[in-house]
Amino acid sequence: MLALTILGNNSAVPAFGRHPTAQVLQTLDDTYLIDCGEGTQMQMAKYKIRRAKISRIFISHLHGDHYFGLMGLLTSMSLLGRTQDLHLYGSPALEEIVLSQFKVAAAHLSYNLIFHPLVEEGIIAEDKTITISCFKVTHRIECFGFLFKQKKKLRSVDAQRAKSYEIPKSFYSKLQQGEDYTNKQGTIIPNIEVTHEPTPSFSYAYSADTIYDERIIDKVRGVDLLYHESTYLKAFEERALMHFHSTTVQAATIATKAEVKKLLIGHFSSKYETLDEYLAETCEVFPNTELALEGSCFKIQ
Amino acid sequence: MLALTILGNNSAVPAFGRHPTAQVLQTLDDTYLIDCGEGTQMQMAKYKIRRAKISRIFISHLHGDHYFGLMGLLTSMSLLGRTQDLHLYGSPALEEIVLSQFKVAAAHLSYNLIFHPLVEEGIIAEDKTITISCFKVTHRIECFGFLFKQKKKLRSVDAQRAKSYEIPKSFYSKLQQGEDYTNKQGTIIPNIEVTHEPTPSFSYAYSADTIYDERIIDKVRGVDLLYHESTYLKAFEERALMHFHSTTVQAATIATKAEVKKLLIGHFSSKYETLDEYLAETCEVFPNTELALEGSCFKIQ
Repeated sequence: MLALTILGNNSAVPAFGRHPTAQVLQTLDDTYLIDCGEGTQMQMAKYKIRRAKISRIFISHLHGDHYFGLMGLLTSMSLLGRTQDLHLYGSPALEEIVLSQFKVAAAHLSYNLIFHPLVEEGIIAEDKTITISCFKVTHRIECFGFLFKQKKKLRSVDAQRAKSYEIPKSFYSKLQQGEDYTNKQGTIIPNIEVTHEPTPSFSYAYSADTIYDERIIDKVRGVDLLYHESTYLKAFEERALMHFHSTTVQAATIATKAEVKKLLIGHFSSKYETLDEYLAETCEVFPNTELALEGSCFKIQ
Repeated sequence: MLALTILGNNSAVPAFGRHPTAQVLQTLDDTYLIDCGEGTQMQMAKYKIRRAKISRIFISHLHGDHYFGLMGLLTSMSLLGRTQDLHLYGSPALEEIVLSQFKVAAAHLSYNLIFHPLVEEGIIAEDKTITISCFKVTHRIECFGFLFKQKKKLRSVDAQRAKSYEIPKSFYSKLQQGEDYTNKQGTIIPNIEVTHEPTPSFSYAYSADTIYDERIIDKVRGVDLLYHESTYLKAFEERALMHFHSTTVQAATIATKAEVKKLLIGHFSSKYETLDEYLAETCEVFPNTELALEGSCFKIQ
């Protein structure tokens, strides 16, 4: 299971009650924050996301609408007495920005803030259930997308049935990996006779702020859910390029070519009060699209 | 006329829908922002304060709940194409914090941001209608309060009546200052016969985050409206001192001793959902007190 909650979906200038970018990704074990625009901690309170649960924060790039809420959140976590380590991923310059502001405030954090500078593409965090990697996208300043990929889970052994076939426990780890068992008599016990399907593994890709860039396709190929920005409607392709952003149709084209299962669009221009046109234009090219509306929770299960 | 709109009234951790500190002071000619906690630009939109109107921003100190909304506001102003100069007053360290964040964003502001470091007490801005000065208060880090004092206006000459007394125009400037006129026959024409009362001048003092400090009394003596923080209820005097804050009764005591006309309290602790007790405790000592509720506009006229 992966659950993505949208806290902010607007481009740079907040408008029509919409906030700058922030998303929360929840797995069964963990909660991650992806970008942290101004007001993220208030949005968390509004949508019942517990600040204390966040274990890792990923900042795609240093445009303010993606990180101006970070200092407030980090400070509140400390004032509330957090003790759990917090991992922060972002541009190398982010560390100094954060530390200098704590310094002038004479603040001493109640927890360890562990900074991970993003420099190259590749795996940036991994545990037994998930691999998190970053990939470069093309924006006005250096910007990274993030791929969250749950690891393939092991098949679960039906102990009663395995016992009935007299399969020794020492072979269980091979059963979990899908191997058949051959008994002393040379009879093959098919794996599916004694194991259950593992719970499926899912993937989410967040491609941050980017121009239309086909290099993204391979990075996000086949994911269950892709977030791709669509700052502009399709008529404004030139303007999108000029501002290093994408249009609805460009987002849908990446989703189509990458054969993702579902597309989520956001980072909407502050010019538009209603978003219907964004959805209509994108769905025309990639039907399984949804708007990243604030407060929406997209469950992949 | 002075009008003070409250945008944020909570202490450090936002709670119960309350935001960190920000206030907007409007005169007939100008709009000032006093402190700028996270979310200030969204609060401005909510309470119909036009970002473009702000001419000066005053930051009392570098605890995040008083300035983490600044970068977002400054950035939005630029993205919206502001051309008017903007004056920013704050700790010398603030300039570097602001500039370093614009630098990593490769941002070029559309307007001149003129930084005025606060170092000493005294007048920091002045025009023909108002004098703005800062004064030191005692907090965990260096912190300034601000005093906004409209200049005494001139009496307005009733030209028709002055003419009927044959007062020469060259004497009008003395009439405006309240002088009587003595004509050639030695008859005194009392000033009030030929002039009208000027519109009154008002004053507002914002004493920021502070412990109970009687040195504030002289700084804010007799103002029409005093904002004094009251982070804690009166039972928590010791805790208030430990955290360099004040209680309800301490705020009221300063107001009483400074003989201000009205007291506004705020910077409420995140522990309390309702604020009735804050008001009751303060009013017991200083009856003309109001809570700095978000969205409230206090007009002095």
